[in-house]
Amino acid sequence: MDMHELTRELKTQNESKILLLVADGLGGLPQQPGGLTELETANTPHLDELAKRGVCGSSIPVKPGISPGSGPGHLGLFGYDPIQYTIGRGALEATGIGFELGEQDVAIRCNFCTLDNEGRIVDRRAGRIPSEESAPLAVRLRDVQIDGVEVFVEPVKEHRFVVVLRGPGLEGNVADTDPQATGVPRLKPQATDEGSRRTAEVAAEFVRQADQLLADQAKANGLTMRGFSGRPNLPSYEEVYGLRAAAVAVYPMYKGLAKLAGMQIVGQAQTLADQVDVVRAHWQEFDFFFVHFKYTDSTGEDGDFDAKVAQTEAFDAAIPGFMQLGPTVTIVTGDHSTPSMLASHSWHPVPTLLAAEHCRTDACERFGETECLRGGLGQFEAKYLMPLALANAGRLAKYGA
Amino acid sequence: MDMHELTRELKTQNESKILLLVADGLGGLPQQPGGLTELETANTPHLDELAKRGVCGSSIPVKPGISPGSGPGHLGLFGYDPIQYTIGRGALEATGIGFELGEQDVAIRCNFCTLDNEGRIVDRRAGRIPSEESAPLAVRLRDVQIDGVEVFVEPVKEHRFVVVLRGPGLEGNVADTDPQATGVPRLKPQATDEGSRRTAEVAAEFVRQADQLLADQAKANGLTMRGFSGRPNLPSYEEVYGLRAAAVAVYPMYKGLAKLAGMQIVGQAQTLADQVDVVRAHWQEFDFFFVHFKYTDSTGEDGDFDAKVAQTEAFDAAIPGFMQLGPTVTIVTGDHSTPSMLASHSWHPVPTLLAAEHCRTDACERFGETECLRGGLGQFEAKYLMPLALANAGRLAKYGA
Repeated sequence: MDMHELTRELKTQNESKILLLVADGLGGLPQQPGGLTELETANTPHLDELAKRGVCGSSIPVKPGISPGSGPGHLGLFGYDPIQYTIGRGALEATGIGFELGEQDVAIRCNFCTLDNEGRIVDRRAGRIPSEESAPLAVRLRDVQIDGVEVFVEPVKEHRFVVVLRGPGLEGNVADTDPQATGVPRLKPQATDEGSRRTAEVAAEFVRQADQLLADQAKANGLTMRGFSGRPNLPSYEEVYGLRAAAVAVYPMYKGLAKLAGMQIVGQAQTLADQVDVVRAHWQEFDFFFVHFKYTDSTGEDGDFDAKVAQTEAFDAAIPGFMQLGPTVTIVTGDHSTPSMLASHSWHPVPTLLAAEHCRTDACERFGETECLRGGLGQFEAKYLMPLALANAGRLAKYGA
Repeated sequence: MDMHELTRELKTQNESKILLLVADGLGGLPQQPGGLTELETANTPHLDELAKRGVCGSSIPVKPGISPGSGPGHLGLFGYDPIQYTIGRGALEATGIGFELGEQDVAIRCNFCTLDNEGRIVDRRAGRIPSEESAPLAVRLRDVQIDGVEVFVEPVKEHRFVVVLRGPGLEGNVADTDPQATGVPRLKPQATDEGSRRTAEVAAEFVRQADQLLADQAKANGLTMRGFSGRPNLPSYEEVYGLRAAAVAVYPMYKGLAKLAGMQIVGQAQTLADQVDVVRAHWQEFDFFFVHFKYTDSTGEDGDFDAKVAQTEAFDAAIPGFMQLGPTVTIVTGDHSTPSMLASHSWHPVPTLLAAEHCRTDACERFGETECLRGGLGQFEAKYLMPLALANAGRLAKYGA
């Protein structure tokens, strides 16, 4: 079921403002069975107040048991079914470094590798070459020239870089050239469908020229290509929800994901306080604001329970600044759980609250994993949050007569 | 959404053990409104302890309001969408008597019937002929000989028996020959698609020869055929989950259902204590164990509240034996509810618990229908239990980057 078939038909306009506050990796686990999670341990008076007057629940990012990456996690929150819509790995890598993909683009994750005299792979990651050495090599590869194709090469980190091929007739269905083994030659780029044959030819020509440009290198004298993918074709927020949407994020990945959904990136915020200021400065121009807070995830990924508690409290402290703007609908959630006990993304449902005048509040008194189990939103798939936001904003007409 | 598309892609291997304990028909109803169910009445200290340290919820076997038979009930628990995957009635009847269907088989539920001199049905069940009389007649029908087809005839009970036709080019889409009325002749086997024409011809020939073999009988001088069906084509546990799966069941039906999912039947258990021993004996060989306990269902079907309470307590008493093996993930659930007040399968959600180190426990203190409503698994379709089991076992990689 594509909810956008309904929202497209039912969407209406008014003066309401919707605020989606995403604390990345918000959900957690207790340090011992029966204990409190990071969110439950944190002192969060402002979130508790919102939970008390709002309606709470547990968001399942994709499906029960599935631990999502940032891509599917955010697609769900933005209301795009994260199974129906996928973002190829090349496209996500390009998005993550702030490269804005166009409709004629194919993005490719590339690794520098070490080849022997016979062209066999000796090291699949070029000895994990440091970024200071690899970035100039990626820039050197911008000298590759291919007729009818615009070539972009962007450094990422260590042995990783991104190539984007732009031109008519390029599609993304080309197999990886990394054989996932050493002592063997690289694979040739092979199209897996008719429409991607030109891409495979262009990729092969890129490799040929790149090998020449890297021939003088000891470690990084070759490259492999993975995750060929075009720009994911998401319908825009404007089209499916009738919302002028703004994204206020610090990291390129989340700006990129928002841009794929047709949101406009506003401001240059570096801190939560900056983010409050940016939202305030643009309050009249947009109907919807996506605010992304990274550090609840990164501290969870680090396995640092106390640091995640502290970042949760920092997030809480920013809430009044947002509330002073008087949003019609405020949602606080995460794109997935990142329990510090697991030091990774997990499948656990994410505590979620929605505050709005007619949200029909529940018995929840605080914001936390166990308390949210009593909430009026129940357990729900993340993709239903946007329809709920629109409904609470008075932006969805009646379905059927 | 077919969850197997995700589990196939994301499955990984480790040393974990998953234990699925199914108390058939576990869910119940109180004897009067506001009273306790069978499970809530039973003294179940070990299940309560698991519920306390695990995460609880209510499993919806198929969809809300749908009372499943054993087939769809178990398919859901095994993670096969019970609407997408169906087991034909002939195939289920064959499975229930322990007949192992092959890929070239078509199974048919047959009834002995009484025909008059003109071939019209006088009694659709041959006077409910007792099994002692009908079984030898079924065996007599093994004398039917049809070119190019292997014919199996197996007694079931009273007027019921099973015919399996085995051979190339046989498909299961043939209409029932029982006209569901007396005073009229039987219908001829009619194929409902091109691929099943040969099956219809073979079935007609079977009936012709069988009528001759039964001509001397007063009651059972004919037969009708229903529920033509091939072997259901389920992908295996190994393929969709990467699990080496064992089934420890007493009754042929549940062994058969497990075998259809690619599980290996182990041991010759007759009691719960035997089942503990069998699981222990095979603990190192398998990743997953399905243990089936029948008597919570059969006592419910008998409408015997007290007996169901007693069987629930017997089930509880076996829990420590299983726990001593140290499973990574333990699930306790049922394939459906069988309230003794209804003396039948019902649609009510089934109390369910999942215990594992990182399951994120909830506020549930006991194992019971009402308590499970507060649980962290919420209400969920049974088909999501297997992805949750895999996630808790650390056997699912992240979805998307």
